[in-house]
Amino acid sequence: MVNFIRSIVLQTSHCKFHIQNKFCPNYSLFVFQPTFKRNFCTNMVAFNRTTLEEVIKKRFFFAPSFQIYGGVAGLYDYGPPGCALQANILDLWRRHFVLEEDMLEMDGSIMTPATVLKTSGHVDKFTDWMVNDTKNGDIFRADHLVETVLETRLNEDQQARSAELEGTIVVASKDKKKKNKIKAVKLDENTKAEYENILAKIDNFTGTELGEIIDKYTIKNPETGNDLSKPVEFNLMFESNIGPTGQLKGYLRPETAQGQFLNFKRFLEFNNDKMPFASASIGRSFRNEISPRSGLLRVREFTMAEIEHYVDPNNKDHPRFDEVKDIKLHLLPQNIQVEGKTNPIEISIGEAVEKKIVDNQTLGYFLARIHLFLIKLGIKNERLRFRQHMPNEMAHYACDCWDAEIQSSYGWIECVGCADRSAYDLTVHSNRTKEKLVVRENLSEPLVYEKTVLEINKKVFGPKLRQNAKTVEDYLLRLDEEQLEALKKALEVGNGKTTVPGTDGKEYEVFSEFFNIERQTITEYVREYIPNVIEPSFGIGRILYSLIEHVFWVREDDEQRAVLSFPPLVSPFKCLLVPLSNNPAFSDLVRDLSARLRKLSIAIKVDDSSNSIGRRYSRNDELGTPFAITIDFQSVNDNTVTLRERDTTKQIREKVDTILQVLKNLTEEEITWDEVMTKYPIFIQQEIDS
Amino acid sequence: MVNFIRSIVLQTSHCKFHIQNKFCPNYSLFVFQPTFKRNFCTNMVAFNRTTLEEVIKKRFFFAPSFQIYGGVAGLYDYGPPGCALQANILDLWRRHFVLEEDMLEMDGSIMTPATVLKTSGHVDKFTDWMVNDTKNGDIFRADHLVETVLETRLNEDQQARSAELEGTIVVASKDKKKKNKIKAVKLDENTKAEYENILAKIDNFTGTELGEIIDKYTIKNPETGNDLSKPVEFNLMFESNIGPTGQLKGYLRPETAQGQFLNFKRFLEFNNDKMPFASASIGRSFRNEISPRSGLLRVREFTMAEIEHYVDPNNKDHPRFDEVKDIKLHLLPQNIQVEGKTNPIEISIGEAVEKKIVDNQTLGYFLARIHLFLIKLGIKNERLRFRQHMPNEMAHYACDCWDAEIQSSYGWIECVGCADRSAYDLTVHSNRTKEKLVVRENLSEPLVYEKTVLEINKKVFGPKLRQNAKTVEDYLLRLDEEQLEALKKALEVGNGKTTVPGTDGKEYEVFSEFFNIERQTITEYVREYIPNVIEPSFGIGRILYSLIEHVFWVREDDEQRAVLSFPPLVSPFKCLLVPLSNNPAFSDLVRDLSARLRKLSIAIKVDDSSNSIGRRYSRNDELGTPFAITIDFQSVNDNTVTLRERDTTKQIREKVDTILQVLKNLTEEEITWDEVMTKYPIFIQQEIDS
Repeated sequence: MVNFIRSIVLQTSHCKFHIQNKFCPNYSLFVFQPTFKRNFCTNMVAFNRTTLEEVIKKRFFFAPSFQIYGGVAGLYDYGPPGCALQANILDLWRRHFVLEEDMLEMDGSIMTPATVLKTSGHVDKFTDWMVNDTKNGDIFRADHLVETVLETRLNEDQQARSAELEGTIVVASKDKKKKNKIKAVKLDENTKAEYENILAKIDNFTGTELGEIIDKYTIKNPETGNDLSKPVEFNLMFESNIGPTGQLKGYLRPETAQGQFLNFKRFLEFNNDKMPFASASIGRSFRNEISPRSGLLRVREFTMAEIEHYVDPNNKDHPRFDEVKDIKLHLLPQNIQVEGKTNPIEISIGEAVEKKIVDNQTLGYFLARIHLFLIKLGIKNERLRFRQHMPNEMAHYACDCWDAEIQSSYGWIECVGCADRSAYDLTVHSNRTKEKLVVRENLSEPLVYEKTVLEINKKVFGPKLRQNAKTVEDYLLRLDEEQLEALKKALEVGNGKTTVPGTDGKEYEVFSEFFNIERQTITEYVREYIPNVIEPSFGIGRILYSLIEHVFWVREDDEQRAVLSFPPLVSPFKCLLVPLSNNPAFSDLVRDLSARLRKLSIAIKVDDSSNSIGRRYSRNDELGTPFAITIDFQSVNDNTVTLRERDTTKQIREKVDTILQVLKNLTEEEITWDEVMTKYPIFIQQEIDS
Repeated sequence: MVNFIRSIVLQTSHCKFHIQNKFCPNYSLFVFQPTFKRNFCTNMVAFNRTTLEEVIKKRFFFAPSFQIYGGVAGLYDYGPPGCALQANILDLWRRHFVLEEDMLEMDGSIMTPATVLKTSGHVDKFTDWMVNDTKNGDIFRADHLVETVLETRLNEDQQARSAELEGTIVVASKDKKKKNKIKAVKLDENTKAEYENILAKIDNFTGTELGEIIDKYTIKNPETGNDLSKPVEFNLMFESNIGPTGQLKGYLRPETAQGQFLNFKRFLEFNNDKMPFASASIGRSFRNEISPRSGLLRVREFTMAEIEHYVDPNNKDHPRFDEVKDIKLHLLPQNIQVEGKTNPIEISIGEAVEKKIVDNQTLGYFLARIHLFLIKLGIKNERLRFRQHMPNEMAHYACDCWDAEIQSSYGWIECVGCADRSAYDLTVHSNRTKEKLVVRENLSEPLVYEKTVLEINKKVFGPKLRQNAKTVEDYLLRLDEEQLEALKKALEVGNGKTTVPGTDGKEYEVFSEFFNIERQTITEYVREYIPNVIEPSFGIGRILYSLIEHVFWVREDDEQRAVLSFPPLVSPFKCLLVPLSNNPAFSDLVRDLSARLRKLSIAIKVDDSSNSIGRRYSRNDELGTPFAITIDFQSVNDNTVTLRERDTTKQIREKVDTILQVLKNLTEEEITWDEVMTKYPIFIQQEIDS
């Protein structure tokens, strides 16, 4: 989906959250198979994205921003349930990662001066290729367009082949605008193979290559049939100016990572100079997508949560690796992908690290922790895999990189990236700013070693070279051991005379009396190193949307009754409070219970509308609220209420105090509803009108 | 501090968080008086901002962003304690406001299309005036520069006067760059009065007026002495382009409010069409300040928390007003300010609303709730006041507006604005988009009333007026009752003939047979209205900084020992865990205790560095961590640990289980340390080396 230059950088720091499915060779034929079963419920109806999208809209999980002004592609507002869901995901993230491991969380600026992003490589490489319709000016992202057109042709080919088998002629697609029917066209075997080959490599083409593909396969604007321009590079950062002069160019950050790297020294000091440690940040980032699509999966503004774990390059073991080593993950390592297969292996992370499938313990530790986090949220294990980047996907400096991919109706989507970025980021910022971003470690035993060193004989060097002394000295000081030995050799060969370039590029004569080059014994008491960075990076919107798909189902008995089975820990609201009717007799109890639930920090939603109880339960199912307390006339008399569980629709009836205690335990996931049902009798009246 | 046009809008929606001190007539002579006493501690040392700033930097509460690149004025990064403090403030905000009152929280886009902000008035009016040094190009915010220069002159005048009294000559200030000493100059009485008058009105000048002041009082660039340009208007929004064509102009939102207004219809539907209700949003907003200053108090990027409470314009009572009516606030209403006084009155909000000092119950309710929130955070009541906007500060559409101002070493700073914005915002967006942003209320009894109405006689009107029919009809349909009666009269006077303007401005002859104007009885079953909006708007960074100042003090016995006495509820970390030394004997207990504390959701910080216990306690005091558990050799034997409280430095020693329970109760503020000290014996060993 991206050009080659970008793909070098992309999959590590820059483009953490783009859709990854290219390594499934059949992905163009991918049709979502809702064959997965949910363990909590057997009454399943096949997944229908349209139904889900209606629920998302109706219950205001999220919706296009500025819609009354016509909206802007790729910008979304989260309504109350979406906002609460996001807050709960972030809260869990903070507890699971930051608090659990004493990570140093920071909250940094979004507006970033251009120099910072020039150093990081974003100004030059954070780009996509775009083409436009030469007649009406419509703009497309080049790789996406090629992908869509070739996919369509392959689909039509497959339909034509099926039809051939069945001896019928099939109309493959309908161009709604033109009201014309287009016939499914069968491709010859060579073309088919070429298309599949292009799609498998779609992330890796340069602009020129994309242009050639467009020409060779006569790809046009599918809407108009018009020709397309040559691909042009487009930087994905939003640009602005800081301050009134307009001279300080700024960009909206494309990731939170750079802000963390720049604070490395402060973090290290805050951490009492102890290594390893991690910084973390939650915040909004921006990418000015050429043509956003796929709802929350490709947007222009998104919330990220990123961890930068700083580690000694010589020792990437993790002190808590033992705690996770037996956790089994679905891994899709490079070698499986190379064979063109997409079935992951299930393997414990301990074994994977031992067998060097995963490069090191720290990377493995985070893969396991990411797995635990996603499962706790409600992501289904069978629809979660970790895919290793292919060597050509990785940045040149990266050691290893794995994406947590979650399957949804859009395919396998990269939702968390986890890369070993080596010392790249700290090195480039350090070089640019001359600020040392290093760790100094007192050695318990001094390090003693031999080294070829150069010592300039100032008494001769300066007076002889005069105004050229500086440029020659600068050159000499940059030489490594091997180069110094070569210089020594050259002086010997030249009988104490040779030439060297200055940093100005000119050649200068030097003599053996100018300096000594010799082997010396070096004793070091302090080791200084630039730490490596292991970076787990989470696209919160992608996780949130995937989760919604994973917990969505429709009651078999009633297609109108959609349910979102969020685990209580992340559900936007924990409990619905419904009086049987809006009879004033209930209002005291409603008020009293609301206050008590709030005091227990249980997020509630009161529904005292005049709708039927069943309708109100149903609305609540769509919000994913796991429990409901119903207040009826009996409640007023004996202070008992019923507690209904969303997925089973079963209820218990107990005294208010008991129900509150049970509910508290349920929302904190200290007991399960199954356990509650064995402990308390099921209440079987009510829900008469549901 | 701003021009006139802006000040109309500013103090309500746009410039919610600028420093407000103009209504203190002596503010130019203001010197921070640390006379306030803290109730928890008597060993006080006078407040010293430099000491505080050192602590803030050393402990990485916050620091300039991109500092290794030289930094950018007005952009700050929050380090671990600042970030945790901010998260705790926001968490409390969410519980205190959103959860407590079932507000509909949303999370909206920052990037906003220009049309939205054109409608809201920001494109035209969200501006400041700037001037530049005509020689070196230095840029200043015009009102700030005038303010600084006149303040300096008044200060020098005062010093000259004092010196005169004492019979000495005083050197008032030192121009460090020029190394010249400048004499304090006494002003004549007229000039002094004029300066004071200008400073009192500094927010309200237009650019032209600021230019006149600069000319009249020969104000120059204080650094260079060079002349200044005429004031030029500068829009404070960061501009960018959305999408690849560059044709869709966008701005970074200057507030979250507009995003909430645009979703009004969705909110109302989500709330089952019930009124009143509130939406809320927490998020980053931006203002491209001309010259940011005063640390976190005037920045280019900041976190806001805003509530938009939608209310029936005919009934601004609040159902829960009774719960707050006895709360006493420090109010500084208009009439006191008009008299030039700055001493607030202390009055219950019930009485203030009853006496119409505060316009309505809902506004009063929020003032009281804001007060409770700030006090709970740790803001000192004696340094908190609510200042009413003067009529010239308020937007033309606003009914009433109060700022919660917190006193810090920078003066009284507006930290929360609370405005009744009438129906302004919903009306302008509705007019612009033609989307009805209204509430429809079924009337329990139909509304019956008499009304003068116009009925056009289409058979005559169209044929007679022909191509002009539309423009005349449009004009007629806009007439109110009074205008209709006048038209009827005009026809009577003109014997059934008169002229009216069309919407095109031309005059047209109309005759009485064109239409009927008569009194009719109207029966309405549904009332339709645009709700009014009451908007409490919180500048989180300002509150955070003010809080840090309020809880900061230095132990009398040791000036090196600064303390931040955050209440446990908001303190960045709740508990420090310190083993007596880094003896491996302690490590099991440290690990075990860490895990148990995490499970209790108590944010901890382990300090197993080799520093002395005293040094580690002291570092912790600077982080504001209220409690510390110390593990020593006795702990390993009898499973007891000590619990130290930050402000008193007193300790108790109990079994681990007891300490954990006490700590849990303390951090949730269910018991106080005083209560703990009466229940458990004070432990008096240890802290030997502190």
